[in-house]
Amino acid sequence: MKKFINDVDNMLNESLSGFVKAHGDLVSLHTDPAYLTRKHIATNKVALISGGGTGHEPLHAGYLGKGMLDAACPGQVFTSPTPDQMLAAAEAVHADKGILFIVKNYAGDVMNFEMAAEMLSHEHATVLVSDDCAVINSTYTTGRRGVAGTLIVEKCVGSLAEVGASLAACKTLGDKVNSNTASIGVALTSCTVPAAGRPTFDIADTEIEMGVGIHGEPGRKREAMRDADAIVKDMVDAILADLKPQTDTEILLLINGLGGTPLMELYLIYNTAEKLLAEHGLNVARSLVGNYITAIDMTGASITVCQLDDEIKQHWDSYVHTPALHWDTN
Amino acid sequence: MKKFINDVDNMLNESLSGFVKAHGDLVSLHTDPAYLTRKHIATNKVALISGGGTGHEPLHAGYLGKGMLDAACPGQVFTSPTPDQMLAAAEAVHADKGILFIVKNYAGDVMNFEMAAEMLSHEHATVLVSDDCAVINSTYTTGRRGVAGTLIVEKCVGSLAEVGASLAACKTLGDKVNSNTASIGVALTSCTVPAAGRPTFDIADTEIEMGVGIHGEPGRKREAMRDADAIVKDMVDAILADLKPQTDTEILLLINGLGGTPLMELYLIYNTAEKLLAEHGLNVARSLVGNYITAIDMTGASITVCQLDDEIKQHWDSYVHTPALHWDTN
Repeated sequence: MKKFINDVDNMLNESLSGFVKAHGDLVSLHTDPAYLTRKHIATNKVALISGGGTGHEPLHAGYLGKGMLDAACPGQVFTSPTPDQMLAAAEAVHADKGILFIVKNYAGDVMNFEMAAEMLSHEHATVLVSDDCAVINSTYTTGRRGVAGTLIVEKCVGSLAEVGASLAACKTLGDKVNSNTASIGVALTSCTVPAAGRPTFDIADTEIEMGVGIHGEPGRKREAMRDADAIVKDMVDAILADLKPQTDTEILLLINGLGGTPLMELYLIYNTAEKLLAEHGLNVARSLVGNYITAIDMTGASITVCQLDDEIKQHWDSYVHTPALHWDTN
Repeated sequence: MKKFINDVDNMLNESLSGFVKAHGDLVSLHTDPAYLTRKHIATNKVALISGGGTGHEPLHAGYLGKGMLDAACPGQVFTSPTPDQMLAAAEAVHADKGILFIVKNYAGDVMNFEMAAEMLSHEHATVLVSDDCAVINSTYTTGRRGVAGTLIVEKCVGSLAEVGASLAACKTLGDKVNSNTASIGVALTSCTVPAAGRPTFDIADTEIEMGVGIHGEPGRKREAMRDADAIVKDMVDAILADLKPQTDTEILLLINGLGGTPLMELYLIYNTAEKLLAEHGLNVARSLVGNYITAIDMTGASITVCQLDDEIKQHWDSYVHTPALHWDTN
C-alpha cells in the first residue's frame, strides 16, 4: 500500500482537520462525537443530515453548505458512523422544522440512523437512497445500494429545504428523486482500504468488475476488459432496463469517477453515454462529470441517469455553495 | 494499460467531444485546427489564450470562461499544440485589446507559441509560467517548469483582463503572480501515456520520485517512501527555500492531486502543509485542494504556495465561471 499517510488510525482525523482548515469559511468540525456542520447554522428550515463511512470523498462533508446539507456524520473508512454522532449532529442543526436523514442503503448505515431516529425527540423522517441498479442485494445491503445518485438527492432536497419547505415535502421530493434515478459502476482496479493495507479484491489486467459497489463489493459479473464504448453500452443498457424512461424525457447524466480515473477518460465515457442515450430518444438536459462519490483510489467510473421533471430541474439548478459543489445559475 | 479507451489515436477527440457536450453552456470546440473558446466570445478585453499537451485535465480547457481564459489549444497527450492552432484561436477571440499567451515553460510549448506570436498581426505578449522549484532544467525545459501555479496565473490575469485592463497590465500581473509562486510535486506511481501503453517510469513500492514533473519527468531525487508528514515537510522546505517569504505574509496554498490520489489524502497533505507554513509564520489566507493540473493517472500530489498581496488576492477572489473553477464570492 502506497499512500500519503502517517498513522492508519489517525488518517481520518488528519484528513478532516485539513478539510475544515481548507474550507473554514463553509464548514465546522465538532468532535466527541465527530460530526461536521455548516459554519453558519441555518434557521427556519428542515435540517438535512447525511453521513456514512468515509473513503467516498467529497461525499458527504463536501456537500455541506447553503442549498445542500446542514450536517454530515463521518464514519471510519467504509464503516458506518454511530447513532451518537447522528444525535449530536441533529441537536446542533435542528431548526424547528424537523430533521431529515438522507441515508445510503447499507445495512450498517440504515441500522445506525434508525437507532438515532428512535432516540430523537425532534420530528424526523428518512430518505433512503437506493439508486444502484447493478444488484438487488449485496455484501452490505438488503436491497439496492445507494451510490452516486445520493448527490442528486442531496442537491435537490437541499434546495427545497432551503426555501422553507416542510419535512413531508422534503421527504417526498427525496423519494421521488431516488425513484427517478438509476446508477451502475464498473471497476478496472480494486480500491485499497488503508486499514487493510492491500487491495480489497484481485482483478486481472484482462478483467473488469461490472456493477461494482463503492466499497469494492462484487457487482453483477467479472467480465472481459474491452473497449470503452462496449463497456458504456452495457452500463447504459442496464440503466435503461431499470428506469424504463419514456422517449423525449429530459435527463441528468452524471459520470462519476471512483477516485483513480483521469478526467479525460470520464469525458470520453460521457461522450459515448450521451450518444447512446440520445439514440434512445432521451435528452441530456443537465450533466455533471468528475469525482463526486468515490471508492478511495479505485480506477473505475459510474454512470447515473436521473429523469427530470420541472420540479427536479428547478432544484438541481438552484444556488448551491459547498466545498465540492458550487454554482449560482446554470 | 487498463483505461477507458476505444482507439488511442481518437481518444483526445472523443474526450474533447464529451467535454464540450457536458459544458456546452460555457465552451465551444473548433476543429481543423483544434481549439476551444468560451461559448460567448468576449468583447473589449485582452484575449487570454493558453494551451499545451493534454493529459493535465482540467487544465487548460476546464478554465475557459468568464474571469479566466478566452481560448485554449489542446495538443495530443503531453505534446505541444501547433502554431496554427494558436493563430486560429487568436483570430477567433481577439477583441481589439491584444492577445496574451499564457505558456507553461516547456521547450515545445515555448517554441510553438513563439512561432505563433511571430505570425500574429495583433498586438500580443506572453506570460511564461515557471513555478516548479524542483529542478532548474528538465527533460522538456530550459529553466524551471510550469506546473500547478499556472492555474493561479490564469485565474488572476483572467480576472484583471475581464475588467478591461491593458495588455501591459495583464502581462505585468501574470509575471508577478509567477514570480510570487513556487511549486513542487512528488510521485508515488508513474503515469501511463495511452500511446505508450506502459508506465513512463519504473518505481518500486518503497520509493517516491521527489520533484517529479507533470509529464512524469524526473525530479530531484528518487527517495525512500516514508510518512506523509516527512514527505510534506521536505516539499514545504523546498518551496520556502525558493520563495524566501517574509513572516506574516499571507499566502495561497494549493494542494493539487496528480490524477490518482484520493481527496482524503490531499486534505491530509493540506493539514500538514498548513501547519508547517503556520509554524514558519505564514498565514494561509486562501486555499484550494483537488485535482486541478494532473499527470493523467499518476498517484502523487504537488504543493504550491503563492505569496499574496492585495492585488493578487482581489483577482483570486473575483467571480469566475468555468467548467472546473466556479465561484461568485469568497
